[in-house]
Amino acid sequence: MNKLLEKIESPDDLKKLNTDELTVLCREIREFLIDSVSETGGHLASNLGIVELTVALHTVFDVPKDKIIFDVGHQSYVHKILTGRKEGFKTLRQFGGMSGFPKKSESECDVFNTGHSSTSISAALGIARARDLDVDDYNVISVFGDGALTGGMMYEAMNDAGHSKTPLILVLNDNAMSISKNVGAIPKHLRKLRMSPTYFRSKHVVEGFLKHIPLVGKHIVNLIKHIKRNFRRLVIPTTIFDDMGFRYMGPVDGHDIKALINCFEYARSEKRPVLIHVQTKKGRGYVHAENNPQKFHGISAFNKETGETQKKGETYSERFGKTLINLAENNKKVVAITGAMPNGTGLDNFQKKFRNRFFDVGIAEQHGTTMAAGLASAGYVPVIPLYSSFLQRAYDQTLHDVCLQNLHVVFPIDRAGIVGADGETHQGVYDISYLSHMPNMTILSPATLDQLETMLHFAVNNFNAPIAIRYPRGGTEAEDISSDFTLGKAQLIKSGSDVTVIASGRMVKRAQESAALTNKSIEIIAIPTIKPLDEEAIISSAIKTGKVITIEDNVKTGGLGSMIGTLLKEKQIDCKFRIFAFPDKPITHGSIDELDKLYGLDAETIANEINR
Amino acid sequence: MNKLLEKIESPDDLKKLNTDELTVLCREIREFLIDSVSETGGHLASNLGIVELTVALHTVFDVPKDKIIFDVGHQSYVHKILTGRKEGFKTLRQFGGMSGFPKKSESECDVFNTGHSSTSISAALGIARARDLDVDDYNVISVFGDGALTGGMMYEAMNDAGHSKTPLILVLNDNAMSISKNVGAIPKHLRKLRMSPTYFRSKHVVEGFLKHIPLVGKHIVNLIKHIKRNFRRLVIPTTIFDDMGFRYMGPVDGHDIKALINCFEYARSEKRPVLIHVQTKKGRGYVHAENNPQKFHGISAFNKETGETQKKGETYSERFGKTLINLAENNKKVVAITGAMPNGTGLDNFQKKFRNRFFDVGIAEQHGTTMAAGLASAGYVPVIPLYSSFLQRAYDQTLHDVCLQNLHVVFPIDRAGIVGADGETHQGVYDISYLSHMPNMTILSPATLDQLETMLHFAVNNFNAPIAIRYPRGGTEAEDISSDFTLGKAQLIKSGSDVTVIASGRMVKRAQESAALTNKSIEIIAIPTIKPLDEEAIISSAIKTGKVITIEDNVKTGGLGSMIGTLLKEKQIDCKFRIFAFPDKPITHGSIDELDKLYGLDAETIANEINR
Repeated sequence: MNKLLEKIESPDDLKKLNTDELTVLCREIREFLIDSVSETGGHLASNLGIVELTVALHTVFDVPKDKIIFDVGHQSYVHKILTGRKEGFKTLRQFGGMSGFPKKSESECDVFNTGHSSTSISAALGIARARDLDVDDYNVISVFGDGALTGGMMYEAMNDAGHSKTPLILVLNDNAMSISKNVGAIPKHLRKLRMSPTYFRSKHVVEGFLKHIPLVGKHIVNLIKHIKRNFRRLVIPTTIFDDMGFRYMGPVDGHDIKALINCFEYARSEKRPVLIHVQTKKGRGYVHAENNPQKFHGISAFNKETGETQKKGETYSERFGKTLINLAENNKKVVAITGAMPNGTGLDNFQKKFRNRFFDVGIAEQHGTTMAAGLASAGYVPVIPLYSSFLQRAYDQTLHDVCLQNLHVVFPIDRAGIVGADGETHQGVYDISYLSHMPNMTILSPATLDQLETMLHFAVNNFNAPIAIRYPRGGTEAEDISSDFTLGKAQLIKSGSDVTVIASGRMVKRAQESAALTNKSIEIIAIPTIKPLDEEAIISSAIKTGKVITIEDNVKTGGLGSMIGTLLKEKQIDCKFRIFAFPDKPITHGSIDELDKLYGLDAETIANEINR
Repeated sequence: MNKLLEKIESPDDLKKLNTDELTVLCREIREFLIDSVSETGGHLASNLGIVELTVALHTVFDVPKDKIIFDVGHQSYVHKILTGRKEGFKTLRQFGGMSGFPKKSESECDVFNTGHSSTSISAALGIARARDLDVDDYNVISVFGDGALTGGMMYEAMNDAGHSKTPLILVLNDNAMSISKNVGAIPKHLRKLRMSPTYFRSKHVVEGFLKHIPLVGKHIVNLIKHIKRNFRRLVIPTTIFDDMGFRYMGPVDGHDIKALINCFEYARSEKRPVLIHVQTKKGRGYVHAENNPQKFHGISAFNKETGETQKKGETYSERFGKTLINLAENNKKVVAITGAMPNGTGLDNFQKKFRNRFFDVGIAEQHGTTMAAGLASAGYVPVIPLYSSFLQRAYDQTLHDVCLQNLHVVFPIDRAGIVGADGETHQGVYDISYLSHMPNMTILSPATLDQLETMLHFAVNNFNAPIAIRYPRGGTEAEDISSDFTLGKAQLIKSGSDVTVIASGRMVKRAQESAALTNKSIEIIAIPTIKPLDEEAIISSAIKTGKVITIEDNVKTGGLGSMIGTLLKEKQIDCKFRIFAFPDKPITHGSIDELDKLYGLDAETIANEINR
């Protein structure tokens, strides 16, 4: 089995295969993907959908000379398989192992690291312009999904690229899905194109027709001339890509290896910006993934036969979703907004239950946030859960549209802190730093699921200004603490006299674990309100113990510890002080515990500092 | 003179005027604008262009019931005049006076504050959805320029809005300019539309034609049917707005008050998303502004007859531009990128001199930044000067695409710190806070024009990682200091033994002024490298004097003072400590000196603290 795949060490080996062999290879690649991802977990459905497309790209183009940029990057597994990284799949997304995303550090065939959506055309255009200045002639290809097209950066880039006339090949991998089903006018436009006859097929037919239209009277001559000039528009709708200066080609069947190769060869010969519209099926070739592409988008290890994963405990995302439904039942002003992730953020049931009060804006955190500001300005309470690393996209909108206007928008920040396997582009370790300096912003962080519930009730019903609630991936909880919450008040978890340990969110549990490892008398203070800080509680404990340690799931600069350190310095509190936080460098992939240990945020290291 | 305008107290008064009177009124408004802005300074050209458009909007719609949102907001002067704020123009953009942007706090006719580009459709859609949930029926109108359409948020919002079918009126004020001439495929698309016959005019003609096309043979029947269905496409190009689900209307002459009123009345009657394409001339009616709309975009007080402003001293922007030309002459890898502001950022001469190495991406900071990352990944040295408050838009791209990949992109941050008259949306007081926690980022800040030059040379030629150089609006310089610069080294400006005053950028001068007001022995340390901090210099001076004061042109949270406070606390340095920075609230408009004084950053207040 996998006899062909075994022989593929680099894309050069592909070029020796004929179409039938390539077809067999694609089947082998699918088997390989299902086998390995069922063991390690990872992104499956999108990679199954892009097998032929990737094989065709590598058959036609020559990496590393030609540059292929995979938007979002989680669909680069086939590319990795074909560029000498089959072995890496044994350690996929594991600490010290192969990344689940393109990484320049892994291979010269990865030219630009990706992770967040909609960056690939911008990066490709930058590289293409460098090529032009170098008077070189390699090809630059951006591969992106229809989901990425809901992100505004793509239009900024197409506006620039379409006008530049720089040769650039855009490959639209259209599976009609982001992570969940796609929304909006552009996806609708794509549906229309998918149902149209392809340009290639119809071109000759129409030209034949036009030659035979009789000319009746002068007054119709000009109209016919116009028709000839615009004959494409007669047969297929003009595409938005034409309007933006691209030569549109498609739609092409994304599982027909021969059609793809022909199409890429043609695109290579055009020396201008081209967009190829490829239709694929997410999860193709694995029945469970075809039937439930959302589940198999990013998945933990699963049973290959049944497609089942192991059920884990309740997560913060799930509790958020349940609580919000409860709140919406009792408060008609509550509305929810998602950036193409109803499932990931726990909004799936809300979506079913409150169809009119649910808005999926696509991968468009900027618009979603300002739209929320609009709703809030008209008296609604918009709740917009976003992953910490994706809220980064809406930094300006959060500051400029929500905070400066002091509008009541609720930002549940999911995946705050270390997220684990997705690695550096997805670590949510910056949000305290990028939110705390925004005027009017309040930042909360629960240490238990129950506390999230209390906080969300407060944020929706008893507050009237911008408010963020950050909580981690999974369901890590502190032990035996009250779910009570009072805005601006610290929470005394344990009294002590030797050392004050201050922690927030997921790290309250670490504080408890650390305390259990020492004989010192530890005072543990949880910080449910990161902004505004409970200065009094912090100061009085610092004075009592004379030694303060802070622990947080965020980078050090601009984080909770820095705020507390500045406070203690300004108030001239005489105490020892040490911050435990993530360092000022990209944080790699690995399990949360492994990464905590790597950066000294494990209980043992903290206990050692307590004992010093 | 201005007899009609005198009588306009609210938009209701407009509704009593006939077309001729409205035309006279428009002339009077133009006179009023030129008179007042020549006295106070402000945004002139865009407001002269939008007079008829605004008058027509207020004639057809009823504010505050109907909601009008002005994108960017600097073109809301006519709206302010018509909504009872004529008197405010005496204090336009002055401390305590009327803002130059829409402000909910000023009038119930301002429904959403704007300042940054491309937010208005998102905000309008949020308000429209709130209206639908309330089962109300007022109109929501977004007014934006063609420049705003180069920003990606607009497409995110149109993708959502066009699909929603929610009644929404978009008014595209197309003057073929951002602040400078517009670039890209979309502006080209608009040019094409401008040259097409209007849809209104041609519709009937074409329908007549089609009825008379003879049907020759069966094989042509289907084609003709298709033609009938798509007859609009024959006559005018399909617009990108149609593709995005909007009913396109236009182009309409934006200085023909009657045509505008007809068009708005028609749009009001359509109960779906509509886009009206209005053609206007920036600076209309004032010859100096028509001839040089860039100069009259935002302008200080000027001579009404000659259009001349007072020449001020050299600015940081100008020095940046000159230096970059010098660098580009000697290093072929240097390229420059602007987000629609070649003039504001000092790149105008670079643009003329190095046409191939200059890229104006439009109001598209996100794309510009990732495009820079692409260029850097291919061996170029992209320099992308942006105003501090506009770089906010590219927070994620700076972190995710540039910093995580450790790419050599140079970010000259213009208008860092207080900008003055533009007020809260434009104050550049967040950049230290939002950049300092990005891994691999270096942050510099010069205290003199010469030092900017030294730093830019270093950043371009002697560095190989992300680097930002923040400098203020205008040309404020420290006195008698060396222009030398060593990465990571503090600069001792003045030795002393009583108090250490640490300052950066513009605030080095304030430190000097403050020191001059006391008899204490002051040690002044300038911080040309904000990140990484010269910890050793700071600590040894703190130990020597026992009292540290920091001064910065940034908010306190996450700023320079916080970094220094945390450092001193962590290192257990026994010293007094006080931070001078902007507070955690929106910073209003006013002169830089007035705002410094308001928030205690003037020399007297700082000197008092030194003396304490």
